[in-house]
Amino acid sequence: MMKEKETMETLARCMSVRAVAYCGLALMAGAVSTAAFAQDLEPLPDSAALSSDTVAKVQLGKKLYFDPRLSVTGTVSCNTCHNLMEGGDDGRISSMGVHGLTGARNAPTVWNSAFQGAQFWDGRAPTLEEQAKGPLVADVEMGMAHHDQVLQRIRKIPQYVDEFASVYGSDEGVTIELAVDAIAAFERTLITPDSALDRYLQGDATALMPAQKRGMELFDGVGCTECHGGPALNGWTPGEEIEYAEFPRYVDSPLVTKYDLASDTGRGALTEEALDENMFKTPTLRNISLTAPYMHNGRVPTLAEAVRVMAVSQLDMDLDERDVTDLVRFLEATEGPFPEISLPRLPSLSGQSIVKD
Amino acid sequence: MMKEKETMETLARCMSVRAVAYCGLALMAGAVSTAAFAQDLEPLPDSAALSSDTVAKVQLGKKLYFDPRLSVTGTVSCNTCHNLMEGGDDGRISSMGVHGLTGARNAPTVWNSAFQGAQFWDGRAPTLEEQAKGPLVADVEMGMAHHDQVLQRIRKIPQYVDEFASVYGSDEGVTIELAVDAIAAFERTLITPDSALDRYLQGDATALMPAQKRGMELFDGVGCTECHGGPALNGWTPGEEIEYAEFPRYVDSPLVTKYDLASDTGRGALTEEALDENMFKTPTLRNISLTAPYMHNGRVPTLAEAVRVMAVSQLDMDLDERDVTDLVRFLEATEGPFPEISLPRLPSLSGQSIVKD
Repeated sequence: MMKEKETMETLARCMSVRAVAYCGLALMAGAVSTAAFAQDLEPLPDSAALSSDTVAKVQLGKKLYFDPRLSVTGTVSCNTCHNLMEGGDDGRISSMGVHGLTGARNAPTVWNSAFQGAQFWDGRAPTLEEQAKGPLVADVEMGMAHHDQVLQRIRKIPQYVDEFASVYGSDEGVTIELAVDAIAAFERTLITPDSALDRYLQGDATALMPAQKRGMELFDGVGCTECHGGPALNGWTPGEEIEYAEFPRYVDSPLVTKYDLASDTGRGALTEEALDENMFKTPTLRNISLTAPYMHNGRVPTLAEAVRVMAVSQLDMDLDERDVTDLVRFLEATEGPFPEISLPRLPSLSGQSIVKD
Repeated sequence: MMKEKETMETLARCMSVRAVAYCGLALMAGAVSTAAFAQDLEPLPDSAALSSDTVAKVQLGKKLYFDPRLSVTGTVSCNTCHNLMEGGDDGRISSMGVHGLTGARNAPTVWNSAFQGAQFWDGRAPTLEEQAKGPLVADVEMGMAHHDQVLQRIRKIPQYVDEFASVYGSDEGVTIELAVDAIAAFERTLITPDSALDRYLQGDATALMPAQKRGMELFDGVGCTECHGGPALNGWTPGEEIEYAEFPRYVDSPLVTKYDLASDTGRGALTEEALDENMFKTPTLRNISLTAPYMHNGRVPTLAEAVRVMAVSQLDMDLDERDVTDLVRFLEATEGPFPEISLPRLPSLSGQSIVKD
């Protein structure tokens, strides 16, 4: 249930947007939701680093992140599907892994993934470290038979062995726990604070264009922030428990049918619990304009269409085209700036390749 | 025919190496060869840039080089098979392109490709620009149906269109000739002068370790420099006509059979001329310790084995293991240093992906 104070705040916000008629729906949606009500928009923190994230550890993790030799064919690295030159994704409906194989879900962005309360669309990995273990041994991603096969390759390369020893101590060796520890440390550097939205929220009234401001007010007013509030616009605040969201809420919408958005049951497929049916992690919306196509199945081709889908599937609401445009303009205000990243040099086994397949 | 002066020089060099017995064979090989005799080892020039290679052009070419959206699946960029984080290749027997397809030949390194007299193993592209056109539309590489499909994607992205206009003028539009012009300009920056070998050749007697010096003397003395002389150890001097080399010369060697090195007829398959049968471009040996596996078909797994293969297939010569080791140590002295490269930001079409397949 919505708390009274929150209800009053929602009402106050609704008075400030032109689409007052929407607000009744937003309040209704809030009243029947089991999720926590909107955490308002907040600037992204300037850092996601842990005190244990040393420069040497981050550099090791960066090499592993970019190393295609961690895949069975030597062709797919973390960066292949989570491309740091683009939106932290691959622009595909679903990723293409080794041997041209594809999976069922759209690759989420790695940018700001440190500000996600869990990883994967169904949240099955509680941490970045646990997430990094998955694709290495997924048949349709990096295709390794088991983590030992990954480690055998790394251990063949003297400079990698030396770097693990230098970062973790010479008694530790090369283990999967250390490898994902380093990758996660690198991923915690992949954040994009100081976007136009952040500057606006920090008091620079000129940082957003008028259409973006209208979009922001609409976004907050109609109820998007119910799930997409907080610093990463995903309803999660660092240190708190993640809450999952039902998607789609309104399954009979023609757009839900058109894009087959109800057949993947999300956490339901993972836990086989009735309460988890069609529950998904709320993804961050930061840099969302760079990560088309959209939704867990990647079937929605444009951001404008994704906005329409979310309005009908979550709020049972048809938006007019000006509202759609303003919301898209607002979402564009969450883009970058992106940190400059130098290409790592991947260590080699001199005169030999470690890829045999 | 070897010229007398060259014969004398070879003899003089032979006197300086311990493997004097080899030298008769080297002289014989030279005497019967139609290829130009050894251009001695030379330092790599500090630049391969043309005066028209502006910073803006190089930056545009770099984006195109790293952009996987130039492949039909959005998964394969130039850098996928010519990885600048590694030896400028992919460490595979033959590259894996779109849909998991593979070709027949091993990916040559892009490092110092500006110092190759022609591109591809059979030299079918006379320039870097012509080379860059090939993989875009090769079924087993980037898989585009035709160059117009590549251009259609680039033209959809406003920032690319603006950058082409900024570099080439607003009347030029986005054409394949301009795209490969930019890619080639970037590739001309991918050079690795100042290796240990270069420093030695420039007078630093301490730059090579004793085993590397022995390897160098052996390399020159037995006749490797007959084909692998010049600044890039590929027998070519910038501005001169390229000469192709017969490979293998001694087809009956068990190693030639073991690795199936005679079935690909090289330029013969291209021109269908008897004179071109089994003629190949001599590849650069710079950074060769980073580009395993070896030979045009990628079947030779290690650099040591590649040295053994070349000795028997080209010089009809069995090397002892110390010689093999010294030659490998010498070849390692051609490694890097590599220029630091920042990851480009690839421009996007906001809210839409241009990859549909």
